[in-house]
Amino acid sequence: MTLRNDAELIINNALHAAQPDTAVKKALKQADFGAGRLVLVAAGKAGWQMAKAAVDVLKDRLSGGVVITKYEHSKGPLKGIEIFEAGHPVPDENSYKATQAAIEAVAGLSPGDTVLFLLSGGGSALFEKPLIPIKDMERLTRELLASGADIVEMNTIRKRFSSVKGGRFAALCTPARVFSVVLSDIIGDPLDMIASGPAYPDSSTAAQASHIAAKYHLTLTDEMESLLKTETPKTLENVETHITGSVRQLCLAAEDTCRQLGYEPVVLTASLSCAAREAGGFLANIAQYHQDTTKSLAFIAGGETVVHLTGHGLGGRNQELALAAAPGIAGMKDTAIFSLGSDGTDGPTDAAGGYVDGTTAGYLADQGIDVFAVLNDNDSYHALERCGGLLKTGATGTNVNDISVLLIKR
Amino acid sequence: MTLRNDAELIINNALHAAQPDTAVKKALKQADFGAGRLVLVAAGKAGWQMAKAAVDVLKDRLSGGVVITKYEHSKGPLKGIEIFEAGHPVPDENSYKATQAAIEAVAGLSPGDTVLFLLSGGGSALFEKPLIPIKDMERLTRELLASGADIVEMNTIRKRFSSVKGGRFAALCTPARVFSVVLSDIIGDPLDMIASGPAYPDSSTAAQASHIAAKYHLTLTDEMESLLKTETPKTLENVETHITGSVRQLCLAAEDTCRQLGYEPVVLTASLSCAAREAGGFLANIAQYHQDTTKSLAFIAGGETVVHLTGHGLGGRNQELALAAAPGIAGMKDTAIFSLGSDGTDGPTDAAGGYVDGTTAGYLADQGIDVFAVLNDNDSYHALERCGGLLKTGATGTNVNDISVLLIKR
Repeated sequence: MTLRNDAELIINNALHAAQPDTAVKKALKQADFGAGRLVLVAAGKAGWQMAKAAVDVLKDRLSGGVVITKYEHSKGPLKGIEIFEAGHPVPDENSYKATQAAIEAVAGLSPGDTVLFLLSGGGSALFEKPLIPIKDMERLTRELLASGADIVEMNTIRKRFSSVKGGRFAALCTPARVFSVVLSDIIGDPLDMIASGPAYPDSSTAAQASHIAAKYHLTLTDEMESLLKTETPKTLENVETHITGSVRQLCLAAEDTCRQLGYEPVVLTASLSCAAREAGGFLANIAQYHQDTTKSLAFIAGGETVVHLTGHGLGGRNQELALAAAPGIAGMKDTAIFSLGSDGTDGPTDAAGGYVDGTTAGYLADQGIDVFAVLNDNDSYHALERCGGLLKTGATGTNVNDISVLLIKR
Repeated sequence: MTLRNDAELIINNALHAAQPDTAVKKALKQADFGAGRLVLVAAGKAGWQMAKAAVDVLKDRLSGGVVITKYEHSKGPLKGIEIFEAGHPVPDENSYKATQAAIEAVAGLSPGDTVLFLLSGGGSALFEKPLIPIKDMERLTRELLASGADIVEMNTIRKRFSSVKGGRFAALCTPARVFSVVLSDIIGDPLDMIASGPAYPDSSTAAQASHIAAKYHLTLTDEMESLLKTETPKTLENVETHITGSVRQLCLAAEDTCRQLGYEPVVLTASLSCAAREAGGFLANIAQYHQDTTKSLAFIAGGETVVHLTGHGLGGRNQELALAAAPGIAGMKDTAIFSLGSDGTDGPTDAAGGYVDGTTAGYLADQGIDVFAVLNDNDSYHALERCGGLLKTGATGTNVNDISVLLIKR
């Protein structure tokens, strides 16, 4: 019971730390905006919440700003801030109009001024203003999708025709500083990939872009030919970036809570990407080695595992990871493994993930449930339901991948 | 280059620590045999090497003894020791004769005396003396094999009809002490399973044995019925057991060497059992999280992974684990992952395992080699051969599973 309580506390604190508003407030604690103007630009699906948190903290210190979020994602007016809703995942006229408003808001700033740039998932579609006519952009998009180009190649091309992507928004803010807060939903936090990096130096080159255009025989107008050869910013002296609310923060928050609960925590990774079942097995193997410990231990892994579908049952990657770990920790004292999705949804189920401990495998066996057969049918939900091993959080308001934890309490 | 040198040193020291003679010498350092008689009994495939190490250390302190090993596994006479070779994996007349000699060697000892019992893999067949006629034992074995009984059920039955298994050899040594040194080749070191535990309390019960006999309709003589109901020792006051040379020791030796080389080592597990490819991915994920470290780090995992055959190439579980880790650590500075089998053989190849670092994936890509295609063809050997990533040790003289290591040097 205590172990399950520990798990619930770790989960609650980690989810709290990954909330957009918590993340923004934490990042703002490290900010010193001096005496100049302070303009807010928030783009992405969490744009409104991030802006709300900034307005709550900064109040009248803000000189104004622009929020661009997805349709029906604004929760009301924010004092002094212009709010736009626009198309996602496909940009529309409102995306361009809103982005133009953001560009205008940061125009004419001085060296002592700051742009507070709040970026979240979905920003790639929501924060866009093409440098070429819309019809040319739409044709290019169609050609790229039909070409077989991969996502890196597509982004390399697209950045050339955008007024804000590939570091160009930060360049537009010059000579003002940019204080960028990024709520990352991509594992590994690749800053030039999140929303195509409006405020991050671009690593792709004009030469690469020309090579890709030739490789896929893209139709280019003279204007596009010229833009293709224009370099994106390779350095940005005026930007300070804080990645926050990412799966890494989820892990760090879990680590903190574990330490407070008396565990000695080890964060193994924030980019777990292997098969869910095997990850569960690996965590159980770790539990086996450390059974003789005299200290309470916690091993934490963030990321996003994959499920190999071999059956037709109900479940999700986190439930499968947890259930797969159950046989390996069978009979172990005060040892538990749990895993959940930070958005509160795991697969097509109403559970966020699963929790198992040393008693789970034996209990299921007594119920006539064969864990290996259940896993082969990808039916972890029903097995965990039988043993009280489902974790349910409801919608959490954030989405920064998954977290898996092994607890050994002594 | 330095990183590869570190790897070679870690490998050499770990393999050295897992040698039967190193293991025996280490265990004997903790021994105090007093002034009584000291009788050696060594059983298993490494029986001769273990006995040789003991004779080298103890010299004239030994009062005599018996070695039982596999045919062609004796390397010559040992002073004062009777050496037997016998059948493996199927016991034969020589197994019974040799075991009888061991039983006689420990008969009539006094409370101040000690039996130095050296056990290694293969002991289950080599160290056996049935309590029932051979023809009954052979029929029982045939019936068990045909019944579909699992290995735990088979051993529960067999122990009842053995004069030495299930703790009975240690009981025969009473009132003398037994100083038992076990070279474990089974993951998790289950002492009642290694050679069916001649000197370890037996956890299986007469009730379980009767249940299994009924379940599989085993043919039992009156004598066998009676033996089935006779309990094996549940406690053994006279035994002190040292597990040594196991995969755990392999990990501990690697941990020691890592520390000497300036790494901060973490042993994750000594019972790794997941898919080789996924284990490699998991280690690469760990490397990703710790790239910002300012201290040199080492993560160590012992065990035995499994390969899922999807192709027809050449390789082994260790080579596959290492190659699978290469893309995940691509471009990382001073980061390497290696894995090898402690017997020096990985799959049907002349390599012990594989070594990859941050340059491997890029180098292979430049050679036109697609790591994922290679993995799908289970052809890790040829890819690693191309990039100098094969680890070759030759036969090592020990066999205590595998070891996988992630090094991050700073």
